[in-house]
Amino acid sequence: MKVEILCVGTELLLGDILNTNAQFLSKEFSSMGFSMYHQTVVGDNVERLKKEFELALGRADIIVTTGGLGPTKDDLTKETAAEFFNKKLIFDKNSYDKIVDYFNRVGRTISENNKKQAYFPEGCTILKNDHGTAPGCIIDENGKIVILLPGPPREIVPMFKNYVAPYLKKYQEGTIISKVLRVSGVGEGRAAEMLEGLIDNQTNPTIAPYAKDNEVTFRITAKAESEGRAEKLIEPIEKKVREILKDSVYGEGDTSLENVLGAMLIDKKLTIATAESCTGGLLAGKLINYPGISEVFMEGAVTYTNEAKIKRLGVKKETLDKHGAVSSETAAEMAEGIAKTAGTDIGIATTGIAGPGGGTEEKPVGLVYVGLYIKGKVMTRKLNVPGDRQRVRNTVVNNAIDWIRRSIM
Amino acid sequence: MKVEILCVGTELLLGDILNTNAQFLSKEFSSMGFSMYHQTVVGDNVERLKKEFELALGRADIIVTTGGLGPTKDDLTKETAAEFFNKKLIFDKNSYDKIVDYFNRVGRTISENNKKQAYFPEGCTILKNDHGTAPGCIIDENGKIVILLPGPPREIVPMFKNYVAPYLKKYQEGTIISKVLRVSGVGEGRAAEMLEGLIDNQTNPTIAPYAKDNEVTFRITAKAESEGRAEKLIEPIEKKVREILKDSVYGEGDTSLENVLGAMLIDKKLTIATAESCTGGLLAGKLINYPGISEVFMEGAVTYTNEAKIKRLGVKKETLDKHGAVSSETAAEMAEGIAKTAGTDIGIATTGIAGPGGGTEEKPVGLVYVGLYIKGKVMTRKLNVPGDRQRVRNTVVNNAIDWIRRSIM
Repeated sequence: MKVEILCVGTELLLGDILNTNAQFLSKEFSSMGFSMYHQTVVGDNVERLKKEFELALGRADIIVTTGGLGPTKDDLTKETAAEFFNKKLIFDKNSYDKIVDYFNRVGRTISENNKKQAYFPEGCTILKNDHGTAPGCIIDENGKIVILLPGPPREIVPMFKNYVAPYLKKYQEGTIISKVLRVSGVGEGRAAEMLEGLIDNQTNPTIAPYAKDNEVTFRITAKAESEGRAEKLIEPIEKKVREILKDSVYGEGDTSLENVLGAMLIDKKLTIATAESCTGGLLAGKLINYPGISEVFMEGAVTYTNEAKIKRLGVKKETLDKHGAVSSETAAEMAEGIAKTAGTDIGIATTGIAGPGGGTEEKPVGLVYVGLYIKGKVMTRKLNVPGDRQRVRNTVVNNAIDWIRRSIM
Repeated sequence: MKVEILCVGTELLLGDILNTNAQFLSKEFSSMGFSMYHQTVVGDNVERLKKEFELALGRADIIVTTGGLGPTKDDLTKETAAEFFNKKLIFDKNSYDKIVDYFNRVGRTISENNKKQAYFPEGCTILKNDHGTAPGCIIDENGKIVILLPGPPREIVPMFKNYVAPYLKKYQEGTIISKVLRVSGVGEGRAAEMLEGLIDNQTNPTIAPYAKDNEVTFRITAKAESEGRAEKLIEPIEKKVREILKDSVYGEGDTSLENVLGAMLIDKKLTIATAESCTGGLLAGKLINYPGISEVFMEGAVTYTNEAKIKRLGVKKETLDKHGAVSSETAAEMAEGIAKTAGTDIGIATTGIAGPGGGTEEKPVGLVYVGLYIKGKVMTRKLNVPGDRQRVRNTVVNNAIDWIRRSIM
């Protein structure tokens, strides 16, 4: 079956936002085995929207729209779709109650406008929105399927995975199975180079590398008559990838570096504490993404000033005077200091120059030291991270988490 | 004049890459005063590409394509455009020499395929590519302008700025100026409702609301013969928006809540420290996004366990026993405790249940208390935040930062 994406929103045409929804939906449909030949973006304008519906329905079997389900007057996708299918909009009390409930929970006052979000084209399938006020819906009639989704990515992603993908299962031909291997500590170029022969020679399964922030993923996708057959095709390829990339493959599927580390720490009963200067709380913030981390994460200190490093972590004044706050010596004392004061097995520390100011010739922006204390042993690592303040800090956080992971394997 | 973007590339339809070109070009055209009503993505397929050219040229005066100028057989944009305009492709020696030169510089061998990149539709304007091998070109005939650009963002951005924008200058009508007001602490629906009369009655300037994460922005856009005139049109509308939304307008243009707060703290010489339980370091991490925050940010504590709350912050054991860690009383003692131990004017504390586990009927997931200590005075606030772990924590962080901002205004 052919599918098309129709993104609705003047903010896309003005370039105010990046269309991450189009990429997300394209990936999902591609992995489900649907063909996509067109994507369109159109503004919040009824006439143009109707024209695009007409074009898209002439070309494809499934149309997915994003955006225009909000409470304001220029949110018109649902109304336009209903008109196109000659459907009345019907009030759905159940959806309205959920919207009221949502507002109550966030402690905000519901407005009369929000009532509009509880009206749906007659006979459609309503898609619950677990992360916002605008429910989506599916109109499935005469061989054409129109799926209306909200605009914000954090609402679309779970709505698609939880409600749309299961709905479309019956329309899938054959089975496509994907397995995602997650790689940390090697760049995309290098990882792809290592796998070159493997990637080039594959048609089924295919191997697609994808770089995002501080990790690379390899998606192995196989198409077959059954799930079992597809899995069998993936197996040997996965084995080869793992043989080549070794410890750099930190996990598979829908996980993250901090989740993998969190599970390892709990499994090995290793407690941990953090001492952060340049990452300013982000490392602790990342670690505690893992639900259940409270079993092993004891404490974190954000010690921006020298006084705090001395008082909280027991860093020696002489060390700071002699080597400076951004030094291997300070990183080591910070890591050991937080582990000792918090009574943990592991202490991890960061100190560096995140920029934009503060750099010197000797210690430029991007110079960061990471200290790692594990049960009496202290190690340090020097990093030179390119990029802006945000990038430096995120890279350091990932590098530190990956280092702990590799050290306790 | 009306402009459309036509992005060519199967990799976009498969979701392999994010269409950052569309956002870049939209922003550029919008700021130049051109109107854009459509964007389309189509694969590397001659028939569909021709059909899209036809549609786009029927709707717009300027068509900009990205992609499909490469050396391989499925790069067909130039050939298709030439056919559409009934033009021969002519070899351009100058361009070919530059391609040869490029290959020599990067130390790669030129292939016969690359010769294809030196052929252009007869009579077009060639656009030099200073960052890759594929030159672009502009066909400008009978009131229609087709601009063919390569695919890679790092090639498009300089090509557009250096060659396309100057070329289009003669077609610009008037100037468009936008001003973005940033709003925190009010939802999109409610904010739009408050501004309803204003939004509905405006055509020039227009007011466009946009919700993102935990903030709402209103973009006021005016079109006039000159920048000065456009600014004059914006002025009274901006004044009205500010009158209606009052303190909820926290800033304008390219800023963030933490940047506004950071500047305020430094300006008012107020020092600050953080004590975090459920936000686990993210609040400190957000505050220190602001470069220069080290002047006023003294220290942060991530006190996940009860022991840490007692030891680091001086929270009383009785308070924890009687009211629990997630309580208004604990939040107050945490805020006061961190301010006292760090010696700061302000202490901000969070404690709550971020989920997914840990919730009870009495204290459900999403229940969070924020404590704020300012120079001897302690306040607390109770929040019920919907969403997953990540969302709860981000919302709490923004809420806390906004609360400090409003409290020290």
